[in-house]
Amino acid sequence: MDPMAIVERQAQRTDSRILYLILDGLGDLPRPGDGATPLSAARRPNLNRLAAEGCCGRFDPVGPGITPGSGPGHLGLFGYDPTEIEIGRGVLSAVGIDFPLQRGDVAARFNFCTLDAAGRVVDRRAGRPSTEENRRLVALLRRIAPPPGVEIFVETESEHRGVLILRGPGLSPQVADTDPQAVGVPPLPVTATHPQGEGTARLVAAFVAQALAALGGEPQANGLLLRGFDSLPTIPAMSERFALRPVCIATYPMYRGLARLVGMDMAPPPASLADYPAAVAASASGHDFVFAHVKYTDKAGEDGDFEKKRAVIEEVDRLLPDLLAVGFDVVVVAADHSTPVALAAHSWHPVPALVWAPGRVFRDSVSEFSEQACVAGALGRLPLRYLISEALAAAGKIAKFGA
Amino acid sequence: MDPMAIVERQAQRTDSRILYLILDGLGDLPRPGDGATPLSAARRPNLNRLAAEGCCGRFDPVGPGITPGSGPGHLGLFGYDPTEIEIGRGVLSAVGIDFPLQRGDVAARFNFCTLDAAGRVVDRRAGRPSTEENRRLVALLRRIAPPPGVEIFVETESEHRGVLILRGPGLSPQVADTDPQAVGVPPLPVTATHPQGEGTARLVAAFVAQALAALGGEPQANGLLLRGFDSLPTIPAMSERFALRPVCIATYPMYRGLARLVGMDMAPPPASLADYPAAVAASASGHDFVFAHVKYTDKAGEDGDFEKKRAVIEEVDRLLPDLLAVGFDVVVVAADHSTPVALAAHSWHPVPALVWAPGRVFRDSVSEFSEQACVAGALGRLPLRYLISEALAAAGKIAKFGA
Repeated sequence: MDPMAIVERQAQRTDSRILYLILDGLGDLPRPGDGATPLSAARRPNLNRLAAEGCCGRFDPVGPGITPGSGPGHLGLFGYDPTEIEIGRGVLSAVGIDFPLQRGDVAARFNFCTLDAAGRVVDRRAGRPSTEENRRLVALLRRIAPPPGVEIFVETESEHRGVLILRGPGLSPQVADTDPQAVGVPPLPVTATHPQGEGTARLVAAFVAQALAALGGEPQANGLLLRGFDSLPTIPAMSERFALRPVCIATYPMYRGLARLVGMDMAPPPASLADYPAAVAASASGHDFVFAHVKYTDKAGEDGDFEKKRAVIEEVDRLLPDLLAVGFDVVVVAADHSTPVALAAHSWHPVPALVWAPGRVFRDSVSEFSEQACVAGALGRLPLRYLISEALAAAGKIAKFGA
Repeated sequence: MDPMAIVERQAQRTDSRILYLILDGLGDLPRPGDGATPLSAARRPNLNRLAAEGCCGRFDPVGPGITPGSGPGHLGLFGYDPTEIEIGRGVLSAVGIDFPLQRGDVAARFNFCTLDAAGRVVDRRAGRPSTEENRRLVALLRRIAPPPGVEIFVETESEHRGVLILRGPGLSPQVADTDPQAVGVPPLPVTATHPQGEGTARLVAAFVAQALAALGGEPQANGLLLRGFDSLPTIPAMSERFALRPVCIATYPMYRGLARLVGMDMAPPPASLADYPAAVAASASGHDFVFAHVKYTDKAGEDGDFEKKRAVIEEVDRLLPDLLAVGFDVVVVAADHSTPVALAAHSWHPVPALVWAPGRVFRDSVSEFSEQACVAGALGRLPLRYLISEALAAAGKIAKFGA
């Protein structure tokens, strides 16, 4: 049995409070020459103090060699096994634009595309329209009358990307992608992947036919490619699993959406990094688990910008004293995945993490917070979903197992 | 598949001999200031030599963040998955007083309690009677005539604690606790947790009614609270799983009981630590796995007594040459769980362990035996149930898997 089942069974409510500070994509690779990473190169006296007083290690978001998207990375952070819970692209896009998805809704991600006179895809992204232009196109699609008993929502994501949501009784996400993932061929017909999806596939096919008519006059965005049909997964809430009262502080809808999927309360998104301490202070009462998500490290990593990533880490470090002043018994600093600047993309490398809880964690020999230093940490190398167990234990939130 | 299934399949009998020396609750936390633990502060030339010549690491008794009781900790040490085998409180109490529990017996732990005139619990521990007083009360309960075909055993554990054992055909442990875990309310009625338990629940209810009558004249211990009904779990013996001939040397009944559950032979309990080498020597012939359990490290940890814990470790260290002189191919020194003096209780922190087997284990860079040094050990951080695999392999007791 996965030891997490025991953690759930022994979880107990206490007054102790955990700060779970997540620097998205924090993990990086030592660069050639000086071996520095944005983290190790940053001026970070406060992170270093937490690492020196706490316990460090490295965590695999999903498993060795596996590069996670944001969904699996955060599921791991929240103590869920990302190999057991799949969140479809459609659902991730819907929660990522703060769409209030309901149980039973079917969501799919779509691209506007360009079709030639013979109906073949010539551009899978319709010349990358602006998000503004996307809104104009979406308005056309919103005029399509839904069939009786079904609601249809068409939402802008950004540029060529949108989300289609169907709501009504008896819908099924068992519908195949229509995106052929190639040009020179027509979009795939709408088909069910299982007999249960046939009704929904017919609804989608009718919508697509009307959409082609509605977009008929467009010079570029005259077609639609759909993929990732899915419904909200059934995920037990963190409050049920761990007896926690969790709250999410995040500026990006995607991360609020992921936190909502595991039942977190939502704090108003801070306007900027500088506003995080006030946001944490405002939401700490009534909650014993504060998930604070910082996106900018990942963005800098995806841009391949070493200096930018370092600057974000330094800014977070400067905010730490104010964050700690809110009063936490346990502080975790970690990441959902690595985004090395050299790769300018998510990667499979374990993320560095520290758990600080005076007198409660093993104070190891690590005296600074960096990917390299964490290799010698006493937490060792663990699957990311166990990070929360370490935090819960340090907070006294797991009762003794067995007599 | 859990690799332990392969270990079982490939286990082979050899003449090589393993000493499995367990210092209960050995693991500790570095203290503020000098960072010392009772282990790192102890004069321990022999333990250090074994660590330097052997291979070190740290082991999670159940999983990250999970604090084990003695049952799960020892199951892990013996190579069993503690999340798969549950040993109820009643069974643990019965084996803990050396009661010869048989398959099919149902055991429950009980407290003597004080009830008021309305039958409500006013003291869940009946003013904590002495163990002597407990024996007098138990003698009253032993006069209760059992129903036909059933044997009832009432046993003193200590102070307010006792054990009730029912023996007979068709009994079931599916009976709910009667302990309300609160005062001001009456004990819960005896009920079955499953229809299969109804017959047994009726027997227990009849016993409780007679017990109340028998205790009616007592000023304090005039009631009984029962909990943890259970039967002996079905655990495959170590001899079957690992082709071992194991023997247990332990002074405390609880640990002899746990060893009996996994089919170990029993050596007479040594009178004191100083008698361990003679006990090991006496039982080594005819056995190839000697489990020697030292309780006093845990006791000192639970008392929060750094110096006492250090002194016990030093005493064990002084005995080591005589223990080794018995002749072992593999020596393991480990613990069932950590009991940090700062917490004065069992904890979730991984335990330090060493495996010594000249020429057979990877001699890592660890040159002393301590929690801190073990972080850098070549065994890394593993679930505790794999510790026995390392010992078996070093003893040549696991044949090659696959061609």
